Formats: sequence, structure tokens, C-alpha cells
Amino acid sequence: MRYFKSDNTAAVSGEILDALGAANDGAALAYGADRWSERLDAVYGEFFGTPVRVFAVSSGTAANSLALATMCPPWGTVLTHCEAHIERDECGAPEFFTGGAKLSLVEGAGAKIAAADLTRRLTWFDAHVHGVQPRMLSITQATERGAIYTPAEIAALANIAHAKQMRVHMDGARFANALVAQQVTPAELTWQAGVDVLSFGVIKNGGMNAEAVVFFDPAQVADFEFRRKRAGQLACKGRYAAVQLLAYLESGIWKRNAERANRLASRIAAAAPKYVSEPFATNQVFMKLGDERIAALTAQGFGFYDWPPAGSGECRFVVSWDTPEDDVDALCAALSRI
Amino acid sequence: MRYFKSDNTAAVSGEILDALGAANDGAALAYGADRWSERLDAVYGEFFGTPVRVFAVSSGTAANSLALATMCPPWGTVLTHCEAHIERDECGAPEFFTGGAKLSLVEGAGAKIAAADLTRRLTWFDAHVHGVQPRMLSITQATERGAIYTPAEIAALANIAHAKQMRVHMDGARFANALVAQQVTPAELTWQAGVDVLSFGVIKNGGMNAEAVVFFDPAQVADFEFRRKRAGQLACKGRYAAVQLLAYLESGIWKRNAERANRLASRIAAAAPKYVSEPFATNQVFMKLGDERIAALTAQGFGFYDWPPAGSGECRFVVSWDTPEDDVDALCAALSRI
Amino acid sequence: MRYFKSDNTAAVSGEILDALGAANDGAALAYGADRWSERLDAVYGEFFGTPVRVFAVSSGTAANSLALATMCPPWGTVLTHCEAHIERDECGAPEFFTGGAKLSLVEGAGAKIAAADLTRRLTWFDAHVHGVQPRMLSITQATERGAIYTPAEIAALANIAHAKQMRVHMDGARFANALVAQQVTPAELTWQAGVDVLSFGVIKNGGMNAEAVVFFDPAQVADFEFRRKRAGQLACKGRYAAVQLLAYLESGIWKRNAERANRLASRIAAAAPKYVSEPFATNQVFMKLGDERIAALTAQGFGFYDWPPAGSGECRFVVSWDTPEDDVDALCAALSRI
Amino acid sequence: MRYFKSDNTAAVSGEILDALGAANDGAALAYGADRWSERLDAVYGEFFGTPVRVFAVSSGTAANSLALATMCPPWGTVLTHCEAHIERDECGAPEFFTGGAKLSLVEGAGAKIAAADLTRRLTWFDAHVHGVQPRMLSITQATERGAIYTPAEIAALANIAHAKQMRVHMDGARFANALVAQQVTPAELTWQAGVDVLSFGVIKNGGMNAEAVVFFDPAQVADFEFRRKRAGQLACKGRYAAVQLLAYLESGIWKRNAERANRLASRIAAAAPKYVSEPFATNQVFMKLGDERIAALTAQGFGFYDWPPAGSGECRFVVSWDTPEDDVDALCAALSRI
Repeated sequence: MRYFKSDNTAAVSGEILDALGAANDGAALAYGADRWSERLDAVYGEFFGTPVRVFAVSSGTAANSLALATMCPPWGTVLTHCEAHIERDECGAPEFFTGGAKLSLVEGAGAKIAAADLTRRLTWFDAHVHGVQPRMLSITQATERGAIYTPAEIAALANIAHAKQMRVHMDGARFANALVAQQVTPAELTWQAGVDVLSFGVIKNGGMNAEAVVFFDPAQVADFEFRRKRAGQLACKGRYAAVQLLAYLESGIWKRNAERANRLASRIAAAAPKYVSEPFATNQVFMKLGDERIAALTAQGFGFYDWPPAGSGECRFVVSWDTPEDDVDALCAALSRI
Repeated sequence: MRYFKSDNTAAVSGEILDALGAANDGAALAYGADRWSERLDAVYGEFFGTPVRVFAVSSGTAANSLALATMCPPWGTVLTHCEAHIERDECGAPEFFTGGAKLSLVEGAGAKIAAADLTRRLTWFDAHVHGVQPRMLSITQATERGAIYTPAEIAALANIAHAKQMRVHMDGARFANALVAQQVTPAELTWQAGVDVLSFGVIKNGGMNAEAVVFFDPAQVADFEFRRKRAGQLACKGRYAAVQLLAYLESGIWKRNAERANRLASRIAAAAPKYVSEPFATNQVFMKLGDERIAALTAQGFGFYDWPPAGSGECRFVVSWDTPEDDVDALCAALSRI
Repeated sequence: MRYFKSDNTAAVSGEILDALGAANDGAALAYGADRWSERLDAVYGEFFGTPVRVFAVSSGTAANSLALATMCPPWGTVLTHCEAHIERDECGAPEFFTGGAKLSLVEGAGAKIAAADLTRRLTWFDAHVHGVQPRMLSITQATERGAIYTPAEIAALANIAHAKQMRVHMDGARFANALVAQQVTPAELTWQAGVDVLSFGVIKNGGMNAEAVVFFDPAQVADFEFRRKRAGQLACKGRYAAVQLLAYLESGIWKRNAERANRLASRIAAAAPKYVSEPFATNQVFMKLGDERIAALTAQGFGFYDWPPAGSGECRFVVSWDTPEDDVDALCAALSRI
Repeated sequence: MRYFKSDNTAAVSGEILDALGAANDGAALAYGADRWSERLDAVYGEFFGTPVRVFAVSSGTAANSLALATMCPPWGTVLTHCEAHIERDECGAPEFFTGGAKLSLVEGAGAKIAAADLTRRLTWFDAHVHGVQPRMLSITQATERGAIYTPAEIAALANIAHAKQMRVHMDGARFANALVAQQVTPAELTWQAGVDVLSFGVIKNGGMNAEAVVFFDPAQVADFEFRRKRAGQLACKGRYAAVQLLAYLESGIWKRNAERANRLASRIAAAAPKYVSEPFATNQVFMKLGDERIAALTAQGFGFYDWPPAGSGECRFVVSWDTPEDDVDALCAALSRI
């Protein structure tokens, strides 16, 4: 099968495997007291151009949920898009980690939240004990429909949130793809725009099993470390998580892999532009091909997901950092034929 | 430093690294739909000689807590030893995962629970709504003090538990060490003795970041998979967890590594037998050396932990699968001098 | 002020106070082992014409949340209307009691869920671990907008739910008002239509501080009693809760009070029919008066709530069992003048 | 039966019933916006001689658990006596309300915690993420074995706790009995000795179904009110809870009832002094009568509890505010005969 299902189907970058091998040398103190883990804050601080606290966890779900739990009380609610991963695809993990906080949903094209919609949704909440209190905003970069937020858009949302004493979380499972898609710095796309905590995705873009949670204000970390341990997310052989996070930035694969995936995806979008159903920006291409064409492509050996709701005739192609160029060629050819 | 602090300080077995590399070949379906994950039940079923369901998670804490959460309701309690890892070293993870179940503690030499003590402790509970209800027994193999349970001892405890409708969990963070220390089969040490669910430790004994949760009755799995996902413990690139679990059994390192660690540890115990404070059985050696001798060894570059409570003059030496023979020689020599 | 804010502002029926006084006679066993508590199942069983298990709790929020927690696992979700009390007005209590289950919202006029909308909403859920699983349907009788469900409507919803292995909860905070508004029996409006568990409201309709949770299948009670105790909802002097529940049915005030409130409310609806914004059915009257008329009525000393969202120009008048006839006369006169 | 089982079997003081009746007069705003609820802080502030925030809840279990949840994070632990009500008799309520915090147990005669034992127990905890962190101390006044803490004893414990950044909770289910048993003021027995939050028991000593949670530093209230609502513990008809709390202090029954119960209990203790197994102080009398004498008393129609563990031959007699003098006479006579 030629895989366009998800960037989760990708293998691991050689740079990551090499780093794991290089770290596999004798004893090292456990639970993050190793020399690799101890470099994390500095390396990520340099990347973002500000002091940060960085923590490795084993999955994007854990990254998101722990970030939310640190800043949202059980009687709080997280404003987020109705198609967000934390709402749709994590089996209630945010509710579990926060001790039962809610997600309050906002609609919007491209799985993006518009400032006006956020403002309107916030009017639903009263500052009394009968209702949950908005305490966080969570946005996804790039979104579940492949769209990206610009620094200005993020700042507009963050300003609204901060004015209400809400913290801002960015689910950056595909942060690198969103970053290289714009002429901006990591700083501009995060803390300078008002992001308080970032789930910085590594796995989809070449990593194996470590994601980074980045706090832009070290003082906000508070109880994160207790919660991480308590959630079984503190790796005992911490070096094997840390080196993935280090190699991701230091080898440059965050950029190289994301650029390649975005570039190849752009070819797919260009192969059948009239079917493209979401403004193309990163490594995901949405097309409203209709059930017949979808069936035809499937029959030709292309693997990809129909997009809900069922019967929409829409599908999604995702290009991974390691999708063979040949597979992209084949898909483009097939698309141009239909 | 010569490390005897914990088997968590060890590196990863070459067999595990090789397996990770071998699996790093092109695309594979995510979240456990890969061909490695799909072999897990069969391979572990053969090892244990009975049909099992096996799930990979990223840490021993997650393994223990998810196993408990699946079988213990929030208003239940888990009977366990007062020195158990789940009580002392997991920052309340069992309480978090179960939704607030309790741990009810039993004392006992060697961090072992004796059948009579379990029976006595159970008399504290009444079948009314005012108190939590005993729903699980959790024992550790090998224990936090290096002791092991024999099949007969496990069966005695499990019979008591099952008679009360309690399920039996075994925290097998060092299961392989306990297994090779006895002339018994994996089956005899687990399900044949009444164990319902096992946290089968891989990481300490050569793995990188995957542990196995083994359910001996497939029907008991119930909601485990939802809870694993919800806890951020379902790896998206599942193959890199699965191959660790497969290689651990199929390469034979579970046995080779454990035998080596146990053997070297026995040399340490033999080097200063009069100080050995716990019956030696596996890869942990406890000695009551007194603070002065402890300080002397530390000064000579040996790394190990004083054992609580503070001021007890007791310390622990742990041998890992990869502890250099030279380090053991040096420690034995130092011990024989004091 | 003339109060039309909520039936929560009402006093307690004399029948309830008398019952409390009558029970205040010497010692009685605590925690529900008293002779009043022991009659609950029989009295409610007769009312509903089927064996039931009935439990007293101190609030409607507790009734709803405990009912949901008993039947919905933490990784489940409760389908409910987006204006439901459990979603809007309980500060996340369902999430707290269930251990972090979700509420998944359905829209619909009159705060009612239509069968087609429920069916459509259920298509969003897949039977895989990535998403929460629908396990309950919760409907409100009468709804937050004063509408009522007929037995046929309930049955249609319950059939859909049961076909998906979901249980059906009815939030009957105003169940009596909904019942007397129709020519149906308690049985027809609940278990015969497929309701599995009912929060049977007593407080709003004349009670003091006890609500009933009614399970129509005694076998479903399972862990309810542990959860109630654990939530601090098992009254130690249980008789003072039980007698409220008994007097509510046995004195007939459930019917008398509800009929009076409904009747007086119908006069209000009739006083300004062109402004009535929701089909009138019980003791709540919604009117789209516009901000100016609302301000005028407020200035005349009528107390009532503007209905969200802010600026809608809509307001709600609620008649309690003890709203003075004189207050209703005054409101009707004021309404007929505008 | 002549009841000496528990002060929970008592009826409600006439003063409380009268207050409920007096408040039952027309409409009042719901959820604590009534004129009775609004007086609570002032009345309790005067009683304690310091500004306080007071909240009504429906049970002692709710009072304790909500107090703990407000000040103890999920990764924290509450140091308490191994026989404390929160450990033994609340079905895990503290774990539920806190989101899975632990209770860490301290032994001690009379169900009291000695300062030296608290200090020793605290040495078990390390300030690292592997273990839960001590965040609260909870002591019971009077204890489960009828003992009382003096202001000096409380201060000694509170000083130890505060030095570790722990907060101090007092479970005062029988606070009035402990207070009248000493020549001290409410202030001396609480905040002046270092108590941060008090569960002030009303129900056992004449109330119906309302207990008070008293915060001595208004700034500590933080999220209490959200948690109370979310737990279904905010009464909608709040006046009927508030008047119980007001009448309890303002009518003087807190003192009158407690003094009577203590005085009658002292007669029981004096009737068979050689069997008294716990230093007598309040309204509970513990006697080691042996199973034969216990059976004899039971046969004579006296109702009381054997005290665990089973077979100890110990029993407990509790005198309530309304225990008939005649019943006490009869018990004293029976005791003097054996």
C-alpha cells in the first residue's frame, strides 16, 4: 500500500536512531538526572529565544493533557475547536488528567478558531459557581484540517484569553510543519504571540516516542512534574527520551523533514486543485473527491482516510517526512487522471 | 562512578536496539495495527503457556496503575505491602488512574506479604458502604527488598484474595530476575498460582521504554484499552514499543540479562555476608553497613542508595544487566576490606 | 419583590415540615436503617407500578451526577441537550462524579432532543479507543425551556439509545410538573418508555433538601450506594431525608403543588400570548419581551431572569408551588398592559 | 432498645426545628443569596473571634473532603490518624474529592497523633516527584476514641505542619463536645492554635442535615465554592441549611447539648471505671468488657457497638444530646452489676 493515512505511519529519522545509539553507552542516572535531559531547557530555550522549561512525555495525548491539567482547575473549562484532537481523538484524556474539567467547543472553518467566535463563545460563561469557568484556550497548529494560524491570529486569540485570565495552550503536533510554512521564527509563533505552553510534536515529524511540553514562563510549571510522574509519563531511562528531543532540534530534522513533507503535499494539492476542500498550507491535503473517486483511488492501492462525517465524500492525504517520492508521483498521476 | 544505584541506570540491550532498527523500515499502521503489535498476544501466550492479552505502555508506573484501574473500582482498595513501589514511589499514580481508590497496607519482612498478615488485614474491612472494599491484591516480584515469592506463596495469597472476590496483580518490574532465581516456569509463577494481571518489566532488564501488561484471562481486559488511550499510553508509532516486547522474549535476553545480574549480585552478597540485611535472592543486595562504612564506599567512587528510613545505616546495591564485571570486582574487593 | 425567578425560591410545603416534625421522635438508626428509609422502595415502587430502588440525596446536581456515574464509565460520554442543566448549571458535576466522562451535546428547539438529531449525533462516534464511547442519554423532563417529552417521544429516544447499549437517564427536576401536564401515568412516562434511572425532583415542588434517585431495574444499582457515601451524600440522620420523599408522594403534594404551579403559569402565558417564545407546557413561561419591556417589569418589582444569551430580549417566569395568586394577578395585569 | 450506638441516632433539637419553621415564610433567593446565609460569616466570625468564611454542606463527609480538596493537590497527601473517620468511615471520600490524593497514616493511643509521631512520619517523605508530598494534617476533635486535643497539643502539631508548608484541618464532628470538655475558647481551640480549616459538626449535636466548613483565613477559600457546587453540596433552598447553622450557635444548643451529653457519659464511665479502656473526656465511653458481658448487656436491650478489631472485647457507648436520662440510669445500673 502507498500510505497517505497519517504521519503516524512514518518510520523514525536516522538522526533519531543514531542519537539513541550514541546515548546507549554505559550507565546514566535515571528519571532525567542524565546529562542529556539536563541540556533540554538550554537547547529549547535557544530555539525559542527565551528561557523555557521543557519536559519529555511519551505521546501527544499526554503532552496536551498534562499541559492542560497544570493550568486548568477541575472546575475550569478549556475553550477549543470542535474538531480539535483533544476533543475528538484522545478518548477524554483532558478530562482524565484535569480531574474532570470540561472542553467547551467553538466552531470555525479550517478547524480554526476565529477571534470573534471566541469572544462570542465566552459570553456564555458567567462568573458564578453554577457553571465551569473558562481557564484555558487550546489551539492547534497546524489544525486538524491542515490550516495554520499566523502570529497575528494567535495574538488576537491570546489577547482575548489573557484578558479573561485564561492561559493559552498550543497543540503543536505538527508545529514544525506550521512553522516552516510561514516566514516566522519559533518565538513569533509562540510566546511572542501569547502562547503559554506548547505541545511540541516530535513523533510525527521523525521522532520515535517522545514529545516535548514547553512552558514559556518557567514560573508556570508549578505542579507539572508531580503530575507527569503520577501519570506514568516520567521515563526511568530518561536519556532515551531526551536525546530524541535534542536530536530533533540539533540535527535540523525538525526543519528538513517538515519542509520535505510540506513540499510533497503541495504537489498533491496541485495535482487536482479543483477538489481541494481546505486551503492548503502544510502536509495535509483535504479533497472532496466524492465516494466514487475515493473508491477508485483505494482500489489502486492508495491508503488514506475518508474524513468524517461519513458520506461527506471528503478525504485526507497526509505526507510524512519519509513518504517515498515515488508514492507521491503515483498519487499525483492518479489524481490528474480523475 | 561505579553505578549500583538502580537497574534504571542501565543502558539498553543491543538486541533491543537492533530490533528497533530492524522495524524502522517504511510505513506501518499506527496505534498498534502494525505487524509487530499483532504478534504480541501470541508470543506472550506461548511464553506463559496460556492465551493472554498483552499491552505495551511506556513505564512501570503506567503498567501498574492501568492494571489496577481496570479491575478496582474507585470505591475499592488495593491491599499491598507498605514498601511497595505503587505505595512509595509512584506519586499517587494508582489513586490517579483508579479515580481515587485507596491502597491499604500490609507489613512484612523482606517487603513480602505473608498469608496470615493478609488474612488479618482483611478483617478490618466490612461489607458496608462506610468503608472502601478490598478488590485487589498487589504483590511485587521480586520485592522492593529483593525477596521473591514462590509459586506456593503466591497461590496462598491468591486463594485468600479470590475467596473475597479480589483480583491479583503482580508488579513484575523485576519479574525476570525473580523467575530465573527459581526452578519454575513463567506459568507456575503467574496464572497457575492465581495471578490475574502482571506488570511484566522489560525496561530495567535491557529494554528502553516499553513495559508489558499481561492479562491472563482475556475476558478481564474490559476497559483497559480505553483507559490506556485516555492516559496517553497508546503509542502512535506502536511498532517501536511492540518490537521491544517481542525482542525481549524472542532473543532470550529476558533470561540472559537476568541471570547475569543475579549472578554478579550474588558475588556482592558473598563478599560481606555478615552485613547482608535481607535474604539475598535476585539482583539487589541489602547491607547494614552503618554510616561510616557507607561513607567510605561512597568516597571510593561507588554509587548506591542509602535505604530509608534515614539513619538506618542500611544501603542497597543493585546490579544491572550491563554492570561491568570490573565494577563488581572492585565493589567485592572494597567490601571484603571493611 | 414578586418572585418569578425560580421554583428554588419557594418555601417548603407544610406537609413536608409536618413530616419532619413527626419523625423527630426519639432515636432511630443512622444512615438509612430507620423505618422511614426502609419504606422508600415500596412506596416509590407502588407509585411507578414496578419494583424500584430509591435513594435520597441532598440536591438535584447530586442526583443527576450519581445516576450518571453509576452507569457511565470514565471513558464514556453522555449525550444530552446543549442547554441541559447537567451541561450548563452544575459546574462540571457530571465530569467530577464520573471520573472525567464527557457530555456530548445535541441541539434542538425547546431544549428537547429530537430522535433524528440523536441518531445523527451518534454517527460521530466510532467504536475505537480514540474517542469516548456513548454510554448514556440524559433527557430533561420538563426541559430547561419548559417543554415536555411525551411517552412516545421518550420511547423513540430510548430505543435509539438502547440499541447502542446506552442507558437512559431522565433529569426530572420538574418531573411532577411534566407528569400532571399530560394524561399519563408515572410508569408510562418513565420505565415503560425506556427510562433506566430517574432523578425525581422533590425540592422545587415543595421539598426542603432531599431528591430521589429512582432505578427502575434493581439490578442496575451496582455501585451506586458506595458512590453516594463516598460523595458525602448519605445522610447520617437518614430519616429526615426519607420522610421528605415519603411525604411528597403520600400526601399528594407532588400532584397538588405541580398542578397549581402549572395552572398559574398558564395564566401568565395567556396574559401576553404573542410574546410567548416557547410552547407553554408546565410552570415555566418564556417570553421574548425585548429589553425595554423587561426593564419596565423589573421596575415594577417583578423578579425574573433574562434568558441567555445576553441581549436576546427573552426572559423566563417560573411559578412555584407557593407563588401567591396575588403575584400572578399582578404580573398578568402588567403583561396585559404592555 | 436503649440507644448508645452513636450520636447519629439522635433526633433534632427543637431549636433547630423551630428555626426551620420560622424560615419557611415565603420566597427567598436560592443558592445562598438569602438573608440567613448572608449572616453566616458574621455569626461564626463572632463565635471564633476572627473573620471567617463559613459554608454549609450536607454531611460531615462532605465537610471533611471539600476542606481537604481545597488545600491539598492531587499529588499531595494528608497526614492523619489511622483510625480517623476520613480513613476508615468515608468510603474513600477524601480520595474522590481531592482527585486522588493519599492519606498517610500515623498511629497513636486514643486515636490521637503525638507530635513526635508526626515528626517521625514526615521523615518518610522526600521532596522529589517519586512520592506524594505532605500538604495537610488532619486531626479529629474529639477523636474516634473520645480523646481531646488541648490547644497546646494542637499548636505543637500545627507548628510542625506549617513548618513543612502543610495546612491543618480539624475534623470537628464532635467539636462542641471537645470544647465544653475544656476551659478554653473556640478561638484557642482552633485558629489560635494553628487550625486552618474546621469541619464544625452540627448534626450529631442536635442538627438535622447541615454541617459547617469554617475557613479561618478568608484568603484560603480559593476554589472551595466551585468545588462545593460541583459536588452537589450547594443547597438550592440554602436558607434551610443556613438556619440550622445559625440556630446552633445563637440558641446556645451547641453548648447545652454538648454539656448534657458529656455529663451523662461521665456517669457511665463512673459506673464501671475499671473497664474503661480509653481516658474518658467527652460523650463517648470505651470499655473493655469482654464478649460475655457485652452479650449480657445486649440481651438486656442496650444498643451499642463492639469496637474493632473483632474479638477485642471492647465496646463503645455514645451519649447523644437527647439520650433519655432513664436510659443512662439503666445502663449505669446494669454496668454496676457486672
